[in-house]
Amino acid sequence: MSQDAKPLVRRHRGDFHWEGVDVLKYKQDDTTPFRDVTRQVLFDAQDPPAQLRYFEVAPGGWTTLERHEHVHAVMVIRGRGTCLVGDQAHAIALHDLVNIPPMTWHQFRAAADEPLGFLCLVASDRDRPQLPRDGEAETITKPFDTLGNP
Amino acid sequence: MSQDAKPLVRRHRGDFHWEGVDVLKYKQDDTTPFRDVTRQVLFDAQDPPAQLRYFEVAPGGWTTLERHEHVHAVMVIRGRGTCLVGDQAHAIALHDLVNIPPMTWHQFRAAADEPLGFLCLVASDRDRPQLPRDGEAETITKPFDTLGNP
Repeated sequence: MSQDAKPLVRRHRGDFHWEGVDVLKYKQDDTTPFRDVTRQVLFDAQDPPAQLRYFEVAPGGWTTLERHEHVHAVMVIRGRGTCLVGDQAHAIALHDLVNIPPMTWHQFRAAADEPLGFLCLVASDRDRPQLPRDGEAETITKPFDTLGNP
Repeated sequence: MSQDAKPLVRRHRGDFHWEGVDVLKYKQDDTTPFRDVTRQVLFDAQDPPAQLRYFEVAPGGWTTLERHEHVHAVMVIRGRGTCLVGDQAHAIALHDLVNIPPMTWHQFRAAADEPLGFLCLVASDRDRPQLPRDGEAETITKPFDTLGNP
Protein backbone atom coordinates (compact mmCIF):
# COMPACT_ATOMS: atom_id res chain seq x y z
CA MET A 1 0.00 0.00 0.00
CA SER A 2 1.66 3.24 -1.04
CA GLN A 3 1.52 6.21 1.29
CA ASP A 4 -0.13 8.54 -1.20
CA ALA A 5 -2.90 6.11 -2.19
CA LYS A 6 -4.22 6.34 1.38
CA PRO A 7 -6.84 8.90 2.40
CA LEU A 8 -5.05 11.94 3.78
CA VAL A 9 -7.50 12.45 6.64
CA ARG A 10 -9.44 9.66 8.31
CA ARG A 11 -11.95 10.93 10.82
CA HIS A 12 -12.62 9.44 14.20
CA ARG A 13 -16.23 8.26 13.91
CA GLY A 14 -16.64 8.10 17.68
CA ASP A 15 -16.11 5.31 20.17
CA PHE A 16 -12.59 4.60 18.86
CA HIS A 17 -13.58 3.63 15.35
CA TRP A 18 -12.15 5.41 12.33
CA GLU A 19 -13.21 5.95 8.72
CA GLY A 20 -11.56 3.34 6.52
CA VAL A 21 -10.03 1.40 9.42
CA ASP A 22 -11.21 -2.19 9.92
CA VAL A 23 -11.72 -3.71 13.35
CA LEU A 24 -9.68 -6.91 13.23
CA LYS A 25 -9.28 -10.01 15.31
CA TYR A 26 -6.53 -9.46 17.87
CA LYS A 27 -4.70 -12.65 16.79
CA GLN A 28 -5.00 -14.72 13.64
CA ASP A 29 -4.03 -17.77 15.64
CA ASP A 30 -7.06 -19.10 17.52
CA THR A 31 -5.01 -21.25 19.89
CA THR A 32 -3.32 -18.28 21.58
CA PRO A 33 -4.98 -17.37 24.88
CA PHE A 34 -6.51 -13.90 25.27
CA ARG A 35 -9.88 -12.42 26.14
CA ASP A 36 -11.97 -9.68 24.49
CA VAL A 37 -9.34 -7.79 22.50
CA THR A 38 -9.67 -6.06 19.11
CA ARG A 39 -6.98 -4.64 16.81
CA GLN A 40 -7.04 -1.74 14.34
CA VAL A 41 -4.10 -0.74 12.15
CA LEU A 42 -4.06 3.06 12.08
CA PHE A 43 -0.84 3.60 10.13
CA ASP A 44 1.26 1.18 8.11
CA ALA A 45 4.37 2.98 6.93
CA GLN A 46 7.31 2.04 4.73
CA ASP A 47 9.77 4.62 6.05
CA PRO A 48 9.97 4.14 8.98
CA PRO A 49 8.98 0.48 8.45
CA ALA A 50 6.50 0.64 11.29
CA GLN A 51 2.87 0.14 12.20
CA LEU A 52 0.80 2.09 14.68
CA ARG A 53 -2.04 -0.08 15.94
CA TYR A 54 -4.94 0.57 18.32
CA PHE A 55 -5.81 -2.30 20.64
CA GLU A 56 -8.87 -2.29 22.79
CA VAL A 57 -9.34 -4.67 25.69
CA ALA A 58 -12.96 -4.86 26.91
CA PRO A 59 -13.66 -4.58 30.67
CA GLY A 60 -12.29 -7.71 32.36
CA GLY A 61 -10.35 -8.75 29.25
CA TRP A 62 -6.62 -9.32 28.75
CA THR A 63 -4.01 -9.64 26.01
CA THR A 64 -1.83 -12.68 25.49
CA LEU A 65 1.00 -13.16 27.98
CA GLU A 66 4.03 -13.25 25.66
CA ARG A 67 7.55 -12.08 24.90
CA HIS A 68 9.56 -11.45 21.73
CA GLU A 69 12.68 -9.73 20.44
CA HIS A 70 10.81 -6.77 18.95
CA VAL A 71 9.88 -3.85 21.19
CA HIS A 72 6.55 -2.15 21.80
CA ALA A 73 6.00 1.56 22.43
CA VAL A 74 2.58 2.02 24.00
CA MET A 75 0.32 4.96 24.91
CA VAL A 76 -3.01 4.47 26.68
CA ILE A 77 -5.72 6.53 24.97
CA ARG A 78 -8.83 5.05 26.59
CA GLY A 79 -9.86 3.83 30.02
CA ARG A 80 -7.55 2.13 32.47
CA GLY A 81 -6.13 -1.17 33.57
CA THR A 82 -2.88 -2.85 34.48
CA CYS A 83 0.15 -4.11 32.64
CA LEU A 84 2.92 -6.54 33.36
CA VAL A 85 6.38 -5.59 32.07
CA GLY A 86 8.97 -8.18 33.10
CA ASP A 87 8.83 -8.71 36.84
CA GLN A 88 6.70 -5.67 37.67
CA ALA A 89 3.01 -4.87 37.27
CA HIS A 90 1.74 -1.30 36.94
CA ALA A 91 -1.64 0.41 37.11
CA ILE A 92 -2.02 2.41 33.89
CA ALA A 93 -4.46 5.12 32.86
CA LEU A 94 -5.11 7.72 30.18
CA HIS A 95 -2.00 8.90 28.29
CA ASP A 96 0.48 6.82 30.29
CA LEU A 97 3.44 5.55 28.24
CA VAL A 98 4.81 1.99 28.37
CA ASN A 99 8.05 0.60 26.91
CA ILE A 100 8.23 -3.16 26.39
CA PRO A 101 11.93 -4.05 25.95
CA PRO A 102 13.13 -7.12 23.98
CA MET A 103 12.33 -10.56 25.40
CA THR A 104 10.31 -9.16 28.29
CA TRP A 105 7.14 -10.91 29.41
CA HIS A 106 4.17 -8.59 29.10
CA GLN A 107 0.40 -8.57 29.35
CA PHE A 108 -2.26 -5.83 29.35
CA ARG A 109 -5.43 -6.22 31.39
CA ALA A 110 -8.45 -3.92 31.36
CA ALA A 111 -10.08 -2.84 34.62
CA ALA A 112 -13.18 -4.82 35.59
CA ASP A 113 -15.47 -1.86 34.87
CA GLU A 114 -13.64 -0.02 32.06
CA PRO A 115 -12.02 -0.86 28.75
CA LEU A 116 -8.31 -0.35 28.18
CA GLY A 117 -7.47 1.12 24.77
CA PHE A 118 -3.90 1.78 23.71
CA LEU A 119 -1.75 2.72 20.74
CA CYS A 120 1.13 0.34 20.05
CA LEU A 121 4.05 1.21 17.78
CA VAL A 122 5.89 -1.77 16.35
CA ALA A 123 8.35 -2.62 13.54
CA SER A 124 6.70 -3.94 10.37
CA ASP A 125 9.18 -6.84 10.20
CA ARG A 126 9.19 -8.58 13.56
CA ASP A 127 9.67 -11.96 15.23
CA ARG A 128 6.81 -14.15 16.40
CA PRO A 129 5.80 -14.00 20.08
CA GLN A 130 6.82 -16.77 22.45
CA LEU A 131 4.27 -18.08 24.94
CA PRO A 132 5.02 -19.37 28.45
CA ARG A 133 5.45 -23.11 28.87
CA ASP A 134 2.76 -25.11 30.67
CA GLY A 135 2.50 -24.04 34.29
CA GLU A 136 4.86 -21.06 33.83
CA ALA A 137 2.18 -18.35 33.39
CA GLU A 138 1.11 -18.30 37.03
CA THR A 139 4.63 -17.46 38.22
CA ILE A 140 5.22 -14.86 35.50
CA THR A 141 1.96 -13.02 36.26
CA LYS A 142 2.47 -13.08 40.06
CA PRO A 143 3.36 -9.32 40.12
CA PHE A 144 -0.27 -8.51 39.22
CA ASP A 145 -1.24 -9.73 42.71
CA THR A 146 0.50 -6.73 44.27
CA LEU A 147 -1.91 -4.30 42.59
CA GLY A 148 -5.23 -5.47 43.96
CA ASN A 149 -8.10 -4.43 41.67
CA PRO A 150 -7.36 -0.93 40.31
CA MET B 1 19.92 5.55 24.27
CA SER B 2 19.20 1.84 24.67
CA GLN B 3 15.63 0.64 24.93
CA ASP B 4 16.12 -1.11 28.26
CA ALA B 5 17.78 1.86 29.97
CA LYS B 6 14.52 3.79 29.63
CA PRO B 7 11.86 3.75 32.33
CA LEU B 8 9.32 1.06 31.48
CA VAL B 9 6.31 3.15 32.48
CA ARG B 10 6.18 6.95 32.27
CA ARG B 11 3.03 8.37 33.75
CA HIS B 12 0.99 11.16 32.31
CA ARG B 13 1.30 13.91 34.93
CA GLY B 14 -1.76 15.73 33.61
CA ASP B 15 -2.17 18.47 31.03
CA PHE B 16 -0.15 16.54 28.42
CA HIS B 17 3.09 16.43 30.33
CA TRP B 18 4.82 13.15 31.15
CA GLU B 19 7.31 11.93 33.75
CA GLY B 20 10.81 12.08 32.31
CA VAL B 21 9.75 13.79 29.06
CA ASP B 22 11.13 17.28 28.41
CA VAL B 23 9.08 20.01 26.79
CA LEU B 24 11.27 21.19 23.91
CA LYS B 25 11.34 24.06 21.49
CA TYR B 26 9.38 23.14 18.38
CA LYS B 27 12.30 24.05 16.10
CA GLN B 28 15.99 24.51 16.84
CA ASP B 29 16.18 27.00 14.02
CA ASP B 30 14.91 30.38 15.21
CA THR B 31 14.48 31.77 11.70
CA THR B 32 11.71 29.30 10.74
CA PRO B 33 8.27 30.85 11.07
CA PHE B 34 5.78 29.28 13.51
CA ARG B 35 3.72 30.42 16.49
CA ASP B 36 3.23 28.90 19.95
CA VAL B 37 4.23 25.28 19.38
CA THR B 38 6.00 22.87 21.77
CA ARG B 39 7.51 19.43 21.08
CA GLN B 40 7.92 16.37 23.31
CA VAL B 41 9.65 13.15 22.21
CA LEU B 42 7.60 10.29 23.70
CA PHE B 43 9.41 7.34 22.09
CA ASP B 44 12.73 7.19 20.29
CA ALA B 45 13.19 3.67 18.95
CA GLN B 46 15.97 1.87 17.10
CA ASP B 47 13.86 -0.86 15.54
CA PRO B 48 11.75 0.51 13.95
CA PRO B 49 14.06 3.56 13.55
CA ALA B 50 11.23 5.93 14.44
CA GLN B 51 10.21 8.66 16.83
CA LEU B 52 6.78 9.34 18.25
CA ARG B 53 6.49 13.00 19.19
CA TYR B 54 3.73 15.06 20.80
CA PHE B 55 3.27 18.56 19.43
CA GLU B 56 1.03 21.09 21.02
CA VAL B 57 -0.09 24.23 19.25
CA ALA B 58 -1.56 26.84 21.62
CA PRO B 59 -4.90 28.49 20.73
CA GLY B 60 -4.35 30.68 17.66
CA GLY B 61 -0.91 29.17 16.97
CA TRP B 62 0.39 27.33 13.90
CA THR B 63 3.23 25.06 12.82
CA THR B 64 5.67 25.88 10.04
CA LEU B 65 4.36 25.65 6.49
CA GLU B 66 6.78 23.12 4.97
CA ARG B 67 7.32 20.02 2.87
CA HIS B 68 9.90 17.21 2.81
CA GLU B 69 10.48 13.71 1.48
CA HIS B 70 9.76 11.98 4.79
CA VAL B 71 6.15 11.22 5.74
CA HIS B 72 4.20 12.05 8.89
CA ALA B 73 1.55 9.88 10.51
CA VAL B 74 -0.52 12.05 12.84
CA MET B 75 -3.25 11.48 15.46
CA VAL B 76 -4.95 14.38 17.23
CA ILE B 77 -5.12 13.70 20.98
CA ARG B 78 -6.13 17.14 22.25
CA GLY B 79 -8.40 19.95 21.16
CA ARG B 80 -9.12 20.87 17.59
CA GLY B 81 -7.97 22.94 14.65
CA THR B 82 -7.28 22.74 10.95
CA CYS B 83 -4.59 21.26 8.77
CA LEU B 84 -3.41 21.81 5.25
CA VAL B 85 -2.32 18.71 3.32
CA GLY B 86 -1.32 19.57 -0.22
CA ASP B 87 -4.11 21.50 -1.90
CA GLN B 88 -6.81 20.76 0.68
CA ALA B 89 -7.51 22.06 4.18
CA HIS B 90 -9.40 20.01 6.75
CA ALA B 91 -11.04 20.69 10.10
CA ILE B 92 -9.57 18.16 12.57
CA ALA B 93 -10.60 17.12 16.05
CA LEU B 94 -9.94 14.52 18.74
CA HIS B 95 -8.57 11.19 17.46
CA ASP B 96 -8.67 12.12 13.76
CA LEU B 97 -5.82 10.63 11.72
CA VAL B 98 -3.74 12.54 9.15
CA ASN B 99 -1.26 11.20 6.57
CA ILE B 100 1.27 13.66 5.17
CA PRO B 101 2.71 12.10 1.97
CA PRO B 102 6.21 12.92 0.63
CA MET B 103 6.83 16.46 -0.67
CA THR B 104 3.37 17.68 0.32
CA TRP B 105 2.92 21.16 1.75
CA HIS B 106 1.41 20.96 5.23
CA GLN B 107 0.60 23.13 8.22
CA PHE B 108 -1.33 22.59 11.46
CA ARG B 109 -3.29 25.43 13.03
CA ALA B 110 -5.00 25.39 16.42
CA ALA B 111 -8.53 26.77 16.80
CA ALA B 112 -8.73 30.33 18.15
CA ASP B 113 -10.12 29.12 21.48
CA GLU B 114 -8.54 25.66 21.90
CA PRO B 115 -5.12 24.10 21.64
CA LEU B 116 -4.35 21.45 19.04
CA GLY B 117 -2.24 18.56 20.37
CA PHE B 118 -1.18 15.70 18.15
CA LEU B 119 1.07 12.66 18.02
CA CYS B 120 3.40 12.55 15.02
CA LEU B 121 5.24 9.39 13.93
CA VAL B 122 8.35 10.01 11.87
CA ALA B 123 11.50 8.18 10.70
CA SER B 124 14.57 8.83 12.88
CA ASP B 125 16.69 9.51 9.80
CA ARG B 126 14.92 12.11 7.68
CA ASP B 127 15.49 14.99 5.29
CA ARG B 128 15.31 18.64 6.26
CA PRO B 129 12.06 20.51 5.59
CA GLN B 130 11.79 22.93 2.67
CA LEU B 131 10.10 26.28 3.19
CA PRO B 132 8.04 28.18 0.60
CA ARG B 133 9.84 30.85 -1.40
CA ASP B 134 9.06 34.51 -0.74
CA GLY B 135 5.45 35.29 -1.63
CA GLU B 136 4.55 31.60 -2.19
CA ALA B 137 2.98 30.94 1.24
CA GLU B 138 -0.18 32.89 0.59
CA THR B 139 -1.06 30.80 -2.47
CA ILE B 140 -0.18 27.50 -0.78
CA THR B 141 -2.33 28.25 2.27
CA LYS B 142 -5.33 29.48 0.24
CA PRO B 143 -7.33 26.26 0.94
CA PHE B 144 -7.60 27.31 4.61
CA ASP B 145 -9.94 30.10 3.46
CA THR B 146 -12.61 27.54 2.54
CA LEU B 147 -12.95 26.42 6.17
CA GLY B 148 -13.98 29.65 7.84
CA ASN B 149 -13.11 29.58 11.54
CA PRO B 150 -13.82 26.07 12.89
